[in-house]
Amino acid sequence: MTGKILEQEIQEQPDVLKRLIERESDHVAHVAHETRGAFDYVIIAARGTSDNAARYAQYLLGAHNKIPVALATPSLFTLYRKPPLMKSALVMGISQSGQSPDIVSVVEEGKRQGQPTLAITNDPGSPLGSVADHVIQLHTGREKAVAATKTYTASLCALALFSAHLGENTEVLNQLNELPTKLVEVIEGASTLLPRVERYRYMEHCSVIGRGFNYATAFEISLKITELTQTVAEPYSSADFLHGPIAMVTRGFPIIVISPHGAVLEDMRALIDRLGALNAELIMISDEPDLLDQANLGFPIPQGLPEWLTPMISVVPGQLFSLALARDRGLDPDKPEGLTKVTETW
Amino acid sequence: MTGKILEQEIQEQPDVLKRLIERESDHVAHVAHETRGAFDYVIIAARGTSDNAARYAQYLLGAHNKIPVALATPSLFTLYRKPPLMKSALVMGISQSGQSPDIVSVVEEGKRQGQPTLAITNDPGSPLGSVADHVIQLHTGREKAVAATKTYTASLCALALFSAHLGENTEVLNQLNELPTKLVEVIEGASTLLPRVERYRYMEHCSVIGRGFNYATAFEISLKITELTQTVAEPYSSADFLHGPIAMVTRGFPIIVISPHGAVLEDMRALIDRLGALNAELIMISDEPDLLDQANLGFPIPQGLPEWLTPMISVVPGQLFSLALARDRGLDPDKPEGLTKVTETW
Repeated sequence: MTGKILEQEIQEQPDVLKRLIERESDHVAHVAHETRGAFDYVIIAARGTSDNAARYAQYLLGAHNKIPVALATPSLFTLYRKPPLMKSALVMGISQSGQSPDIVSVVEEGKRQGQPTLAITNDPGSPLGSVADHVIQLHTGREKAVAATKTYTASLCALALFSAHLGENTEVLNQLNELPTKLVEVIEGASTLLPRVERYRYMEHCSVIGRGFNYATAFEISLKITELTQTVAEPYSSADFLHGPIAMVTRGFPIIVISPHGAVLEDMRALIDRLGALNAELIMISDEPDLLDQANLGFPIPQGLPEWLTPMISVVPGQLFSLALARDRGLDPDKPEGLTKVTETW
Repeated sequence: MTGKILEQEIQEQPDVLKRLIERESDHVAHVAHETRGAFDYVIIAARGTSDNAARYAQYLLGAHNKIPVALATPSLFTLYRKPPLMKSALVMGISQSGQSPDIVSVVEEGKRQGQPTLAITNDPGSPLGSVADHVIQLHTGREKAVAATKTYTASLCALALFSAHLGENTEVLNQLNELPTKLVEVIEGASTLLPRVERYRYMEHCSVIGRGFNYATAFEISLKITELTQTVAEPYSSADFLHGPIAMVTRGFPIIVISPHGAVLEDMRALIDRLGALNAELIMISDEPDLLDQANLGFPIPQGLPEWLTPMISVVPGQLFSLALARDRGLDPDKPEGLTKVTETW
């Protein structure tokens, strides 16, 4: 069977996050101490999967630390050579390889302007790690599959550590310690459902919808599907979906909905009802039994998790779904065509 | 023929922008004077088409005014009730109707926190217009078609006026005055090519790629196609496209590329070469004759425009393409199914 490397890296995630928390938490506490109060907002430069981690940071730092987060526009720093003045900002780069020149440029410019800088990367010796004042290391071990999985959940976890230490929030730190066990549960639960992914053998496109903390999850699942299965997948928030794209939903249109318990659930339920009335095909990732019942294919996640923690859990069924669909289509999940592990963009 | 309202509103754009510049420029100069120096960065709240205008602001204010722009996460203000502290920020809302409660909430909270606030809207008497310190009015007249066209280009133009006056940049103001004539040209040029849109009668999905100033154009054309033609269209920057999605490009995969002359053209050309080698179907919007020759369908835009101005021009072939494709499919372009003109989201 193809995809053994990717499968193993998905399975490794509980251990990876456990190791990250153990090895890095004290250092992150130090980074938080050094940077606390030195900025009014955060600018994050990232691409691909790491950019989706940055989306999570928008909600996490916003909701838990009251800090606004801007996603950088790297081409202003590289192609246009017109970097904005980042006064009042902490400048952060997220990249597992730490290699992409455009991401390095943003952090470099932040440093040049005298702003505090932070890198989240697997490789502290990379150009990104070398340029930043502070580095949070992901400790995932080498990621061999081209599609990122363990470095994504590790990036979210690193951001959660940073947010928790910044706010000296011991409740969040304690909840984070439960994560590895919950990850084991969700991997086991989702794995038993994978034979049913065959149903989507001939799906040509789909939408993926999440909101709030799980807006990032919608983007990341979308990216996994796109990379691994040659399906056109488009991510939306439930609110943006109503501002136009809902017009394309006809009978059988496949939609993946991430809808765990939490502040946005009521909003998601209203959208799910409308999608049901349009006879959309619903693939659901949720901890709500009635929603899972209503879905054509429902992936359960453990109940009782705080909403901010669910993105590290709810992405996993999407990773496994993409892996299974790639296999059903005879594609190689370890090496998608046209991709390389390190993509250097300017 | 259906779609007469939408067609007329697309055609109106040269007059609309002319009127906006004439009526609003002095007032925008006043707004710029009042807000100049009062903020280090801008937070913009917007949905749908207006959110795409906000993307343009990221590049325009970044490149011309050295100001970073963050896109707000409205659910933090509404569903989560955890608004971030927007110290150092100008808080801006963009909404043609000025009605959407989530957008109003962000600006309202900015005002509560004592930050300067600005609304860009067609209706100064709307909730959004009423709450903001300053209002830039779009003066487009009522937009009757559900899909936004003239309010999009007008929002870009309003942002360009704000940027120009903020920087007291008379060169930009002069260039802006050429816009209406260039719009007439592009509408005429694109209209003659619309019979060829039939070729895409059975296209089920596509990607739309732009970068830098025209990253916004990729999003907006994508949204028009999605709303009007029930096609799954997904926008990307050329850099992000290389970090994963290029894996889904097989022979005949349709891609719309916005590639006018400017700082990002070399980067776009490299991507176009790769797409050509993959035998993708290329629809091009450009002022580069050789690129237009290479395209399966090439929409020319006038030559010699400064790159920052091209988004107000290059979106128009995308609007007309979407209109023509909707007609070819027997859909009503004036009233896409499932949409209403004012969408209230929380």
